[in-house]
Amino acid sequence: MLVKPYTELKPEKVEMEGTVNTTIRWLIAEKEGASNFFMRLFEVEPGGHTPFHSHPGEHEIFILDGKGNLNSESGPKSLLPGTFAFVPGGEKHQFENTGSQPLKFLCIIPSDY
Amino acid sequence: MLVKPYTELKPEKVEMEGTVNTTIRWLIAEKEGASNFFMRLFEVEPGGHTPFHSHPGEHEIFILDGKGNLNSESGPKSLLPGTFAFVPGGEKHQFENTGSQPLKFLCIIPSDY
Repeated sequence: MLVKPYTELKPEKVEMEGTVNTTIRWLIAEKEGASNFFMRLFEVEPGGHTPFHSHPGEHEIFILDGKGNLNSESGPKSLLPGTFAFVPGGEKHQFENTGSQPLKFLCIIPSDY
Repeated sequence: MLVKPYTELKPEKVEMEGTVNTTIRWLIAEKEGASNFFMRLFEVEPGGHTPFHSHPGEHEIFILDGKGNLNSESGPKSLLPGTFAFVPGGEKHQFENTGSQPLKFLCIIPSDY
């Protein structure tokens, strides 16, 4: 059983093309013993965003802090602390910080993403 | 794509034997389109706890608010906002509120729990 504050993990810069001012921490993945689904924590700085992209694996999202938009082909939806989101595999999406503080969220993905 | 504040969902009392003063909200499950893993939000009131039990499916946990212990056969581990936990399938575990505010956490489970 692993129990740890996420702040003990060092954030890594997300280098994927189309990403601006965003870090990731892999909280729970293979090396923690997970095999079905993995938990990551993202921080998007003010003015930053993830790429507008799609992939086969779904996302389950929970907003921890900050303010932003979840952009899709049907337009933006507002994100605030306590907002959750399900992004089915194959749907284009982008997380964008529209506030003045970091936008922090959990993103859980299947292991075969 | 589903985007919603968790507070729009009504908490349901957890009736499982050994549970005290605990509610659950199912945020993302089959009816939201998920098929691999499901996201739930628990609130344990002061003095409350979940059962000390085990089951085949693993838990991926993130503490949102409050103060508590994650009890296991090797003793308690402290939970605060920002703590994450991986509970492998088959390991006995219990969430216990040791504070004066609700202990709120996300618990993600495989769909075949």
